[in-house]
Amino acid sequence: MTLDPIQLSADLIRCESVTPVEGGALQLLERVLSGAGFQCTRVDRNGTANLFARWGDKSERTLGFNGHTDVVPVGDAAAWTHAPFGGEISDGILWGRGATDMKSGVACFVAAAVDHVTQHTPKDGSIAIAITGDEEGDATDGTVALLDWMDANGERMTDCLVGEPTCPNTMGEMMKIGRRGSLTAYFTATGIQGHAAYPHRAKNPVPAMARLIDQLSNHTLDQGTAHFDASSLVATTFDTGNPATNVIPSHCNATVNIRFNDAHTGAELTTWLEAKAAKMAEETGIEFAVRVTISGESFVTQPGYFVDMLAAAVEAETGLKPELSTSGGTSDARFVQKHCPVVEFGLVGKTMHQVDEHVPVEQITQLKSIYARLIKDYFA
Amino acid sequence: MTLDPIQLSADLIRCESVTPVEGGALQLLERVLSGAGFQCTRVDRNGTANLFARWGDKSERTLGFNGHTDVVPVGDAAAWTHAPFGGEISDGILWGRGATDMKSGVACFVAAAVDHVTQHTPKDGSIAIAITGDEEGDATDGTVALLDWMDANGERMTDCLVGEPTCPNTMGEMMKIGRRGSLTAYFTATGIQGHAAYPHRAKNPVPAMARLIDQLSNHTLDQGTAHFDASSLVATTFDTGNPATNVIPSHCNATVNIRFNDAHTGAELTTWLEAKAAKMAEETGIEFAVRVTISGESFVTQPGYFVDMLAAAVEAETGLKPELSTSGGTSDARFVQKHCPVVEFGLVGKTMHQVDEHVPVEQITQLKSIYARLIKDYFA
Ligand SMILES: [Zn+2]
Ligand SMILES: [Zn+2]
Repeated sequence: MTLDPIQLSADLIRCESVTPVEGGALQLLERVLSGAGFQCTRVDRNGTANLFARWGDKSERTLGFNGHTDVVPVGDAAAWTHAPFGGEISDGILWGRGATDMKSGVACFVAAAVDHVTQHTPKDGSIAIAITGDEEGDATDGTVALLDWMDANGERMTDCLVGEPTCPNTMGEMMKIGRRGSLTAYFTATGIQGHAAYPHRAKNPVPAMARLIDQLSNHTLDQGTAHFDASSLVATTFDTGNPATNVIPSHCNATVNIRFNDAHTGAELTTWLEAKAAKMAEETGIEFAVRVTISGESFVTQPGYFVDMLAAAVEAETGLKPELSTSGGTSDARFVQKHCPVVEFGLVGKTMHQVDEHVPVEQITQLKSIYARLIKDYFA
Repeated sequence: MTLDPIQLSADLIRCESVTPVEGGALQLLERVLSGAGFQCTRVDRNGTANLFARWGDKSERTLGFNGHTDVVPVGDAAAWTHAPFGGEISDGILWGRGATDMKSGVACFVAAAVDHVTQHTPKDGSIAIAITGDEEGDATDGTVALLDWMDANGERMTDCLVGEPTCPNTMGEMMKIGRRGSLTAYFTATGIQGHAAYPHRAKNPVPAMARLIDQLSNHTLDQGTAHFDASSLVATTFDTGNPATNVIPSHCNATVNIRFNDAHTGAELTTWLEAKAAKMAEETGIEFAVRVTISGESFVTQPGYFVDMLAAAVEAETGLKPELSTSGGTSDARFVQKHCPVVEFGLVGKTMHQVDEHVPVEQITQLKSIYARLIKDYFA
């Protein structure tokens, strides 16, 4: 008997696990994994629930899986045509929040792993599964907490697969071997408030900030690298919060988000942003402050045996040679890469975070087969 | 017996006439003026109270006075060292909201006019007094309503003095013979919302607006004209209202305020702003919308007998030859100038609109003397 990943996906969707709520999702997985012989440990930190499960000896070569059961909010609940936490299947489609991102991904690697362990003995190979309840939130007490706990307990993964949705449109077309880094810079420009009729008595921070944002937005960071697209800089906010159109505000704020490739580091970009602000301050007499938060550095898992093995498994099951991409947003792979080589492969992500998130059940079946083949090949 | 302008100023301050509340201020003035023989008419419109008072025949040469009894809010009430509506006098200082802008100014010309009419007969000269309760607000139903009513009723002023505070620091140093025009332009830039990790799927309106604001802020409108300083353009607001720093917003708004001299008209500047926005739209593919409200065109009362007469009265009472200025914000003079030649002279405005607004009582005495001299000379 094998574990049905479609049923498990639907059961997980029925757990209302909007970040940071556990919602029963990790409890369900713990029952399933324990039942199959995994040794399970809840690694909770600061109210975030996480689950670590191991099968086989921790000193052995270990294939790891990482994923999350928390989901983003449903958004406009009235706009859903199927209950977002219903886990309904109709006409071969599974509907619900987390159907693609990424309860089905978790269900597939758990099902593949359970099938494996029920047909093998531990000395055939060790499997570690690390599932977090805080990927869609701050992610400070999720995968990071699991990795900290693993370090402290002599736990390790030799290689790790993250089961995030990676295919833009067609199952099998893309896997991720790295991610761009991401940072957010918060600028504050401070001048002197005054009446618009007497601008010489005030110092207006708005034109200075506008010029800085124009300059930054038009700067080319790079042209891309071997494994990465060009880095991008995006000004996402600019606010004075000034209710009076005849008053020069004393300050204004703007935010810039940078997605950067391996031609840059967060530290180098921070220095560059600080220098640009300092230069604008000098030019305009407006005070500038910059605060930068780095969500993750860029990384790439160089093509090699693990990347090749996953690509071969995808091709064998889908007929498509997956593109080795580093595109898109960040994921918990940015944490895992500090621990061991990491690759990402999962479902078609088109409806993730949207109203009426859904996935064809045949994709779930296919994904479980790919993960099962990876496990088999990994321990062959 | 003459009417004490200091007492009348204090009495007016005790009326809590924050725009658009009448607060008893116009009722008090109506009693005083009626008692002295003025024919008074309340010219209320859309909830705004205004008062018109005439002495003498309306077909005769008429000296007009214009002012307002409404005041701006007290702001931080706890920060006042004297009750804002107390009208307290201590150590020769009158304290309270409206002490300089412009209950004392109104009290001075009312007192001067009452003194005049009690010592003369109507055939010696006609006086018209137009006082509004909506100068600090939208000003749509204030002086404009009074002038509309005057037109409809065959009422006119041959020349008019507006009693706003005009002196920056020292009593007598400045009068106003014109005002710059003022307009506010509201820009909206619209692109396509998207995630910061996928900027090619979105269209970011922020950099386009930033560049437009930078361009406009650095444009020199002119170098000044015979009677005016250079026109100024000030960007006062810029807002995305975007709570998510990793999301490219679909639109943003910015506001620009222009104070313009007689080298420009509101219509010409509107056309220019629209063209700049259209050009930026073409350059960036971002949609721009512009809405312009013109609060007033620039105007100047060319130096001549009325300007000279007021300047002479100021010099006779203060020893200072007043500068003939067109600086500062707008006032109701922008409406009156369509009706007749208008000049402005009043107190030192340093504390207007501030906490602890106040005026030395000797300045009130001086101002009444200046107005009295103007009336005497005007009918000499
Ligand atoms: Zn995810
Ligand atoms: Zn005023």
